[in-house]
Amino acid sequence: MNAHPFDEALRLAPAGGHRWSGTPSAAYQNMVGPFGGLTAASFVQALLQHPERLGEPLALTVNFAGPVADAPFVIEARPVRTNRSSQHWTLTLSHDDAEGRPLVATTGTAVTALRRETWHGSDTPMPAVPPPEACAPAARLQWQPEWLRRYELRPVSGALPAVWDGGGDASTSEVWVRDAPPRPLDHAALAAMCDIFFPRIWLRRATQVPAGTVSMTAYFHASAAELAACGESFLFARAAGQEFRHGFCDQSAQLWSAAGRVLATSHQIVYYRQ
Amino acid sequence: MNAHPFDEALRLAPAGGHRWSGTPSAAYQNMVGPFGGLTAASFVQALLQHPERLGEPLALTVNFAGPVADAPFVIEARPVRTNRSSQHWTLTLSHDDAEGRPLVATTGTAVTALRRETWHGSDTPMPAVPPPEACAPAARLQWQPEWLRRYELRPVSGALPAVWDGGGDASTSEVWVRDAPPRPLDHAALAAMCDIFFPRIWLRRATQVPAGTVSMTAYFHASAAELAACGESFLFARAAGQEFRHGFCDQSAQLWSAAGRVLATSHQIVYYRQ
Repeated sequence: MNAHPFDEALRLAPAGGHRWSGTPSAAYQNMVGPFGGLTAASFVQALLQHPERLGEPLALTVNFAGPVADAPFVIEARPVRTNRSSQHWTLTLSHDDAEGRPLVATTGTAVTALRRETWHGSDTPMPAVPPPEACAPAARLQWQPEWLRRYELRPVSGALPAVWDGGGDASTSEVWVRDAPPRPLDHAALAAMCDIFFPRIWLRRATQVPAGTVSMTAYFHASAAELAACGESFLFARAAGQEFRHGFCDQSAQLWSAAGRVLATSHQIVYYRQ
Repeated sequence: MNAHPFDEALRLAPAGGHRWSGTPSAAYQNMVGPFGGLTAASFVQALLQHPERLGEPLALTVNFAGPVADAPFVIEARPVRTNRSSQHWTLTLSHDDAEGRPLVATTGTAVTALRRETWHGSDTPMPAVPPPEACAPAARLQWQPEWLRRYELRPVSGALPAVWDGGGDASTSEVWVRDAPPRPLDHAALAAMCDIFFPRIWLRRATQVPAGTVSMTAYFHASAAELAACGESFLFARAAGQEFRHGFCDQSAQLWSAAGRVLATSHQIVYYRQ
């Protein structure tokens, strides 16, 4: 039996110390380099494989500093401070340049932590929406990056504009999402799904300008056991922009389990041209 | 004439390479260590002073890995990748431990970038609220950390509970804020103000449990010139929690100029006990 393409893409081999080596996956290719969500997931995977890890992923920031080349890469996941119940990590993904020196393509930080039972509550209830079975699959883009084929997306609202006429007036999208083919949920998959939204500027302006994520942060609100209990179900995801100015816009997102529990909240700042 | 206490607190001396040395400011002391917003601002200040900096602060993530001691510290602000119009930084704040080795108290990453005139829009209009002159100053906490005296806070809604009776049911606060005494706005001051909110869990539960920021991210949506043009005016700030579970809650915030322009959007994940 073959591994799931996501697990294939996440494969990292120990390369000594805090280093892990990997190769880009054709299955998750974007316009230039891999899908950013896969890079975020690879950072999470490096944490999960690290023998010194304390606790589970809580917070992750990924900065897309330069293109990830179609060539072997090294991820360094270094625990810089370990406390009683939390641990702080610095992350880099780098390639060797022509002279064999590491050139950093991605930087990041993460916090892993022990989760405890405490008082809990939510101020972000999942909206009342039709179930995924009642929603049509997403329309395809004219150019279709390969990674999009790795997700089953069923928009509920704020789908890609049918006509690119510059007439957009809002930036909120709601969508059901799961891996294609389905795969049991874990923190790496959840990190990747935080980045499945097309650029908010496309929706807001109904104009397809060049755009790309500069930095993304994800906060994980569920334990590994809670994610595993979601199985291969769809997640409900919502994203909205707040401000678009000077060639940069932000995006805030929430991801809920099908049962309506917040699993992750996520934010990013995105470059756009014009 | 004395410098403003914020400028005193931000003072950093070049310490060779990408390093800057500073000393904690009694004026911005919190319960344990300095106000987290001041640490964020010190990272911004190190970027602003760095001779190799390209562009202006765009994104900042600060991870509070351990206590900042009441002792001299060193900030390292290292440009790890410089592109044509953006630059990626890694940041640490450390103290020397008993053996003279650096012990990391704070980690971070930042992006600086050139801002261009582009299409702009906002999906987060400032709510219609009474002006700061019409709002009463914030009630004082029983214990009053010193840093709170460095801000003039005028709550509009979601002030500290008058009675800590466990009866909270929402986590949104709106407040007018400026430095006390007033000081012209810049990216360092804006970074600090992203952290001026009391923990959302206090409001949500009307219970004062131990709580502290684990990681904070800020996106800056205004240029240095636009911030300078705000002068010493109040900013309008809003914060809300989304999810509270397993001892961690998140917070999303927006900061507007008095004229209603979004200057920064910010997010954090916060530890709480019980």
